[in-house]
Amino acid sequence: MTTQEIMIRSKAVSKEIAAFDNEKRDRALACAADALLRQADAILEANAADLAAAKGKIGDVMLDRLRLTPARIEGMAQGIRDVIALPSPLGRVLETVIRPNGLEIKKVAVPLGVAAIIYESRPNVTSDAAALCLKSGNACILRSGKEAHASAAAIVDAMRAGLREADFPADAILLVEDVTRESANALMHGRGYIDLLIPRGGKGLISACVDNATVPCIETGTGICHVYVDRDADFEKALNIMENAKTSRPSVCNAAEVCLVDAAIVPEFIPLLAQRLTACAHPVTLRMDPVCLPYAPQAVPAGEADFDTEFLDYILAVKAVDGAADAIRHIDAHSTHHSDAIITENAATAAAFTAAVDSAAVYVNASTRFTDGGEFGLGCEMGISTQKLHARGPMGLRELTTYKYVVTGNGQIR
Amino acid sequence: MTTQEIMIRSKAVSKEIAAFDNEKRDRALACAADALLRQADAILEANAADLAAAKGKIGDVMLDRLRLTPARIEGMAQGIRDVIALPSPLGRVLETVIRPNGLEIKKVAVPLGVAAIIYESRPNVTSDAAALCLKSGNACILRSGKEAHASAAAIVDAMRAGLREADFPADAILLVEDVTRESANALMHGRGYIDLLIPRGGKGLISACVDNATVPCIETGTGICHVYVDRDADFEKALNIMENAKTSRPSVCNAAEVCLVDAAIVPEFIPLLAQRLTACAHPVTLRMDPVCLPYAPQAVPAGEADFDTEFLDYILAVKAVDGAADAIRHIDAHSTHHSDAIITENAATAAAFTAAVDSAAVYVNASTRFTDGGEFGLGCEMGISTQKLHARGPMGLRELTTYKYVVTGNGQIR
Repeated sequence: MTTQEIMIRSKAVSKEIAAFDNEKRDRALACAADALLRQADAILEANAADLAAAKGKIGDVMLDRLRLTPARIEGMAQGIRDVIALPSPLGRVLETVIRPNGLEIKKVAVPLGVAAIIYESRPNVTSDAAALCLKSGNACILRSGKEAHASAAAIVDAMRAGLREADFPADAILLVEDVTRESANALMHGRGYIDLLIPRGGKGLISACVDNATVPCIETGTGICHVYVDRDADFEKALNIMENAKTSRPSVCNAAEVCLVDAAIVPEFIPLLAQRLTACAHPVTLRMDPVCLPYAPQAVPAGEADFDTEFLDYILAVKAVDGAADAIRHIDAHSTHHSDAIITENAATAAAFTAAVDSAAVYVNASTRFTDGGEFGLGCEMGISTQKLHARGPMGLRELTTYKYVVTGNGQIR
Repeated sequence: MTTQEIMIRSKAVSKEIAAFDNEKRDRALACAADALLRQADAILEANAADLAAAKGKIGDVMLDRLRLTPARIEGMAQGIRDVIALPSPLGRVLETVIRPNGLEIKKVAVPLGVAAIIYESRPNVTSDAAALCLKSGNACILRSGKEAHASAAAIVDAMRAGLREADFPADAILLVEDVTRESANALMHGRGYIDLLIPRGGKGLISACVDNATVPCIETGTGICHVYVDRDADFEKALNIMENAKTSRPSVCNAAEVCLVDAAIVPEFIPLLAQRLTACAHPVTLRMDPVCLPYAPQAVPAGEADFDTEFLDYILAVKAVDGAADAIRHIDAHSTHHSDAIITENAATAAAFTAAVDSAAVYVNASTRFTDGGEFGLGCEMGISTQKLHARGPMGLRELTTYKYVVTGNGQIR
């Protein structure tokens, strides 16, 4: 099928499946999970072909992201089962109003329709995204990156076989066959077909979607996250949180990239910070401004660009600020408004910080690494929105639904 | 100021006013309402200039929309006072979760930041939109149509004078000075400055925004609304609702344009419908399909295009359908998904209809004319969204806010 044909087909199927009950959706997903395991050999074979083709063309980190193993396929199937176990986001009555004229107005959660996901080289996104879409009553169109296409096709084949067994329309999951720029463009401009476009991947992909899409699109991802250590911080908490936020998984968007330190505590705190982050399992390169630098012989001077860079690596930019107000100003100017934290025991300072910092998640005395659907109790995650419309922060099942008003009367006219 | 300078200034002000309390916002709006009345003469004078310039260039209906009178200015001031009286949408805690690790996660309603409204020739949109934006904690950028620009400038002048009196930043309301296509384009592409773009006006304006905007944009408006009269309808209710939905105000988006009639009742119902709609105060031109036509000597044959046209006039397209399932299919293919109604006494048929029809508002035994912020109990309205992301149906104050997660810990790390 061409991408246009896929969009037409997906829209038609979305209407059919919107009427199904949740039990039918869950049964179909359970069959899809089983089918993934049953067809694991075919998936591994396709993945081997992807890996062979990609070798030498992409770096080792990317190759590792692309690689599937029996354990990873088991993990994908378990991921689907975890989604099945979550409560359905559909049919919730969000509000009921009885108007003075007797009209009953119910605001009811319903599926969006068709969700399109454009992603890159992680094959497991295929099953994750499809499961979230189906659980929330949507049809999905997947477009994987070129490197992962054979793997994605094998995963989709298996899941569709599972859907068929459950007497669920297999076309609820459709994979774009053509992985050229044209197919991505077709999705971005699929007005009337695509109800939500979610890019999952690097900055370039996300910008391309946000800049070009004429369909509703959610901006996800980029995280230049800050931890501000206030003069009233508990240093032990500050050091633990800073180490965790920077080193527990530096390659993800909720890892901290910048530490702001209250100038009042620089002489005391910077040596402790430098000691902690250079002595840990994965030593961190510290890039410090001229105020902090003298207190850390292990550090190197920071350049201006270091405060606007998502390192995704064992690198931390460190800067002195003149108290919380100055920290707020710096964050306002440099944050991607993903996750930013303050470490302080002063409740008033914490309140001022959380009120002023305009980010999806604002933390007091906790690691920015918690910005995650699972950690927030959503049970899963389609991505982390850094925009303000519709969804902000981790997007779970509810964020894949919309609502409609069902108005019941007895002949009322206006 | 250039449009670019206006966007930069508005973004800066939005951060300042986001921290204000609701009392300060309400006081500023009260002063703005007073100032409108105080400067009524200047506003009327500017409006007279707009009217003189527009005469001969736009039709009488448009001229009437453009015209201000002392009573209309009083109405605008009252509109602001009505907004003041509404509960603030800010600071609501939408959800609180305590995680097993002790983290407290609060989802809190906050302003979007900067809302830009591009509108056409109705000067009262100026004060309405500004009041809604300020009440919800946002700064606003207004771009009126060329015809209404002098009126809009005088209204904005007055409101800004009111804000200043209340010691509120006047730049919370900014009017784009340049009314060329370039300024609209600048707003549509104001990434990093504009948090929400709302076009209010005709189809051309809305399409231009939705197609070109790279900032988050809400599609509003166009309404091809259906009333389906089922075989189990109470005819008296059906006739009252059809007359109301068509003739109470045909120029608005929630007016009905199409009546679908169950084929089983065509011989009985069509003569009554024709009688009712041609004998009323404003007789309606009935355009009927071949099945219905023989039963209404007053009607003319419908063309194919009549079932895809927003008449905004005393014209109704009428078509026979083969029961509710066929009505649902027709609506799915031809509705703009704004408001659609079923008239039936059969609860099962009504339930099937409300489940299947994918429109912002789905009615049972009531007029589509109720789709309105005031009628839905929102107290006001910025427009009616016909898209599914963020807001659907009437947009009130809550739909002009977003949320952030405030996460409070005691040193938690992941």
